[in-house]
Amino acid sequence: MSHGNECYELIARLFPICRSITGDGVRQTLSAIGEIIPLAISEVASGTAAFDWQIPDEWNVTDAYVMDASGTKVIDFQTSNLHLVSYSVPVDLTLSLDQLKKHIYTLPDKPDAIPYRTSYYDQTWGFCMRHHDFLELQEGQYRVVIKSSLKPGSLTYGEYLIPGESAEEVLLSAHICHPSLANDNLSGVVLLAYLAKQISSEKRRLSYRFIFAPGTIGSITWLSRNEDKVANIKHGMCVSCVGDNGGPIYKRSRRGDATIDRAVEHMFTYYLGKGVIKDFYPYGYDERQYCSPGFNLPVGLFERSQYGEFSEYHNSRDNLDFISPDALAESYQMLVSILDILEHDVKYINTNPKCEPQLGKRGLYNAIGGNSERQQLQMAMLWVLNLSDGSNSLLDIANRAQVRFDHIKTVADLLKEHGLLVSSE
Amino acid sequence: MSHGNECYELIARLFPICRSITGDGVRQTLSAIGEIIPLAISEVASGTAAFDWQIPDEWNVTDAYVMDASGTKVIDFQTSNLHLVSYSVPVDLTLSLDQLKKHIYTLPDKPDAIPYRTSYYDQTWGFCMRHHDFLELQEGQYRVVIKSSLKPGSLTYGEYLIPGESAEEVLLSAHICHPSLANDNLSGVVLLAYLAKQISSEKRRLSYRFIFAPGTIGSITWLSRNEDKVANIKHGMCVSCVGDNGGPIYKRSRRGDATIDRAVEHMFTYYLGKGVIKDFYPYGYDERQYCSPGFNLPVGLFERSQYGEFSEYHNSRDNLDFISPDALAESYQMLVSILDILEHDVKYINTNPKCEPQLGKRGLYNAIGGNSERQQLQMAMLWVLNLSDGSNSLLDIANRAQVRFDHIKTVADLLKEHGLLVSSE
Amino acid sequence: MSHGNECYELIARLFPICRSITGDGVRQTLSAIGEIIPLAISEVASGTAAFDWQIPDEWNVTDAYVMDASGTKVIDFQTSNLHLVSYSVPVDLTLSLDQLKKHIYTLPDKPDAIPYRTSYYDQTWGFCMRHHDFLELQEGQYRVVIKSSLKPGSLTYGEYLIPGESAEEVLLSAHICHPSLANDNLSGVVLLAYLAKQISSEKRRLSYRFIFAPGTIGSITWLSRNEDKVANIKHGMCVSCVGDNGGPIYKRSRRGDATIDRAVEHMFTYYLGKGVIKDFYPYGYDERQYCSPGFNLPVGLFERSQYGEFSEYHNSRDNLDFISPDALAESYQMLVSILDILEHDVKYINTNPKCEPQLGKRGLYNAIGGNSERQQLQMAMLWVLNLSDGSNSLLDIANRAQVRFDHIKTVADLLKEHGLLVSSE
Repeated sequence: MSHGNECYELIARLFPICRSITGDGVRQTLSAIGEIIPLAISEVASGTAAFDWQIPDEWNVTDAYVMDASGTKVIDFQTSNLHLVSYSVPVDLTLSLDQLKKHIYTLPDKPDAIPYRTSYYDQTWGFCMRHHDFLELQEGQYRVVIKSSLKPGSLTYGEYLIPGESAEEVLLSAHICHPSLANDNLSGVVLLAYLAKQISSEKRRLSYRFIFAPGTIGSITWLSRNEDKVANIKHGMCVSCVGDNGGPIYKRSRRGDATIDRAVEHMFTYYLGKGVIKDFYPYGYDERQYCSPGFNLPVGLFERSQYGEFSEYHNSRDNLDFISPDALAESYQMLVSILDILEHDVKYINTNPKCEPQLGKRGLYNAIGGNSERQQLQMAMLWVLNLSDGSNSLLDIANRAQVRFDHIKTVADLLKEHGLLVSSE
Repeated sequence: MSHGNECYELIARLFPICRSITGDGVRQTLSAIGEIIPLAISEVASGTAAFDWQIPDEWNVTDAYVMDASGTKVIDFQTSNLHLVSYSVPVDLTLSLDQLKKHIYTLPDKPDAIPYRTSYYDQTWGFCMRHHDFLELQEGQYRVVIKSSLKPGSLTYGEYLIPGESAEEVLLSAHICHPSLANDNLSGVVLLAYLAKQISSEKRRLSYRFIFAPGTIGSITWLSRNEDKVANIKHGMCVSCVGDNGGPIYKRSRRGDATIDRAVEHMFTYYLGKGVIKDFYPYGYDERQYCSPGFNLPVGLFERSQYGEFSEYHNSRDNLDFISPDALAESYQMLVSILDILEHDVKYINTNPKCEPQLGKRGLYNAIGGNSERQQLQMAMLWVLNLSDGSNSLLDIANRAQVRFDHIKTVADLLKEHGLLVSSE
Repeated sequence: MSHGNECYELIARLFPICRSITGDGVRQTLSAIGEIIPLAISEVASGTAAFDWQIPDEWNVTDAYVMDASGTKVIDFQTSNLHLVSYSVPVDLTLSLDQLKKHIYTLPDKPDAIPYRTSYYDQTWGFCMRHHDFLELQEGQYRVVIKSSLKPGSLTYGEYLIPGESAEEVLLSAHICHPSLANDNLSGVVLLAYLAKQISSEKRRLSYRFIFAPGTIGSITWLSRNEDKVANIKHGMCVSCVGDNGGPIYKRSRRGDATIDRAVEHMFTYYLGKGVIKDFYPYGYDERQYCSPGFNLPVGLFERSQYGEFSEYHNSRDNLDFISPDALAESYQMLVSILDILEHDVKYINTNPKCEPQLGKRGLYNAIGGNSERQQLQMAMLWVLNLSDGSNSLLDIANRAQVRFDHIKTVADLLKEHGLLVSSE
């Protein structure tokens, strides 16, 4: 399926990199995305204010381990970057087991999984490990080494704007701050990169803005530096956890009835026949910031599985085995379908609003579709003609007619060709 | 039951006539209706424009048959006018069975029924027959004779306006273009004729306009010649298929919440305890034209059984056995109940809006109803008083109170008599 | 439980008094309430107009009985004031059993209960008795004595306004006209008295107006004399039948979506997990008058059991055994919870509306609650911040967040303390 394999391969390449909200891991990842699309990279200096926040010091790490008295590394960052709590300060200490344990995090209910932990705003350090291994630790002295640096630097994000005929924008945003976690969110990052590449090759009515930034602080930083651009954002989605087979799940924007909300719900209902729609709530990914009351942007969250709820969430099981090229290709197609609705959701005016136009004399009754579809498409034509009074968009019509949007669009194009519809603008 | 028998008798008299969208069959039918009510007949010349349409040539037929080599008429228009495809051009040909078959229509799944077929806008010819008989046709040569004429003439429709106190109109429209089909729509045509007769004998608040016209082209023609009258149409229904025992079924106007829509739904719920309400869709009978976006009139469709869905629809089973005087009388009563709601759906103002008026001192608590009804009528009185603030009509009150409209009207009349209500106009 | 016992004791003390819509029984009752709160007593002279009504003559009674030929009192007002139809005119007659029976009311389906009957506006007399006893009456002559007076005097009501910071008022109203009936409505009268006492001891944002008046004519009289005060009434409830274990039941105001309606529904849903909400209908207690169209006040009816439906309603079974201190204490707490919502239902503005404020640096993530509650309270904080844009009150937020109002209030207070919220006024 389209783009599934290339997405999967790039995810596999990016998987080992140790990303965080700042640092070289993010830069390397953005650089790889930049091979696909012409990404504009921004570096924002530590200490810069971003609304109520401040860009933190930059964190980088070269190595980290815990070594027992025999010189064996019982925890080793080189085997998985999840072993180190993100933003751990540099240390080189020798500790007793009891002292060490205060800095170790495990998942007793998933004893074979390494948890993912961060401590961005408290200066501390820690290690994550399999609970199973944790239970094997013997009494004794341990040497703890973290070769990290936490010092003024910058926060890095990437951005790509594809201008369309209209200045009205669709915002697509993925958080890029997680280390070796495949679904959350290399899947979202890479899928959006390939989607951007495809869109840039097409003539589009709408403009498309892609943002690849660390979660929370990244979107806050972007918003604080781009307040003048916000008014153009007419639709948007955060995209994460799109590499697995679940869902899909869509969380509505704070507005609840934005076009994006209705477009995704239409796609789920009429294209997929499945999918879960959730009302907005002020927790989650970067939609929290886009939907803060001072912006209230029409931005939802698109996922396959719900963050926080799938078993692989934020632990080492969210690896390359958890995601698949097929699931990525499906997610890609879902996003394409949603964007197609946004792209073509325009309002037309019926040029013969008084009584029906005579479709027969124009050959329109049998103009399109096989026998089996013909009746549906005729009905779709009558719906488009009946409701195109300037107050209903094609999506409004599709929903009232309970007909797939793309069928509505097909007949609208045909009616326009025959002069029976004109744009309402 | 009232009007059931007289309706049935007139339908029986009109049944044999070969009607189409133009021609003498329509004239004969309107002439018979004209014996009941003073119908204004319009003739609109072929070629006249009606919005996107044009009045077609007039079609008449005197005879049509298919004769086998032995001189036996294997299909004979004289036995049923359904045998001839409506608007068939005149022919006198001799054909092989194979050639003939291309012009024959049957219903394989209803082998004893003759289908009803038309070809108004393609110049062609055809015959309809029982599939059972079709299978008996032997190889050989057949002579096909259609003694029809298709030439400039006129389209004919009838109309009757009954002026009321107000210029506001109720439109009642029946299509009159079908040949020997009883339910669809001699039932609607004849029921409206007797209803019009009854209404013309009564003092009415609203004006009532009855239109008897061929389907689609007839209502389009009427609308194109009466655009100045449309603003007065405040309520309306197309009436068809009202001679059988089904339903009733009401399809809402395009507006969806017009008074007529709410009146019919109220009647179904509180008077009948049955009935199906369907949302508007842009297919069906003449409501398609009345509800086209350039008019958007509050006109629904009233039926007993749903066109296209009952087994007798558009075939020879839709005959005098399919309908009954009792069903016609029931339908008549349903329409009367709906019109009574429209007629009396006015807004009052409570003249004692501050606290309840003292009903006891006026003898109003026991003024009406038997013991069993008294409590309901007292409650209805309190509802009318409480909600008559100028914003609620009696139908609004009946719906909020969940009380039959006629009970609400009874107590409103009584309260008005006692000076506790005045008209809000 | 709080106030249950003191309420019960006062009800027991007031139970024997013979109250009606006028007379000394009402005065004695108001005098007892006046020992708890500083009640303003109004006397309105008989004959005074009150909208469509007139204050009736005052009725008092000292004794009443029916005595058989042997001198035995077969009905005796002294044993229960329910025996006498309220507003019975004075009589001293000797009658046959048959004549007497025309003046006797019983409940054949509850043969051990004395019904409660009134005849305020028809000058007549009557007795109520157990059906069981009624069947024992022997043929013979009976002497009927009613030592009542019905003559110009006055109607009495009591009122207590507790001013708050704002002139906006909460109206709490109880009917005080019933004789020895405990639930309906000594329970409401006494509960409101103790509630008023409590409120008067607290600093309150809203003002609270308590009305203790005879049913119907009392509220009509109050409204007719206080039209200038009505505009300040922003919330209100009639309170009755709050001494039993049922419900609770709340009948919405005529508006249906007033804050009081939403506050009670929230309390039922999120605090109690039970309770029945009924739509407004124009029958019941004094909410009929407050919700008449000329006033349309946001006043509902709060009850434990539905008047007219519980078996003890309006008969001698509605006695001190039917109610309990525990049920009264529960009802008291329910009212307190509702008033707390009204009191604190304000709108705030998020002072950092663009993106989330950084809660962590303020220590707000762990500022409140035990471990188990912490996540809920964090979520509540995010909801309050997200929705505090000036258009949502705390109750709106609680409903959208599906979180108890008091939790929302707790976090709002904390956020306000940290300068993250300011009042929207």
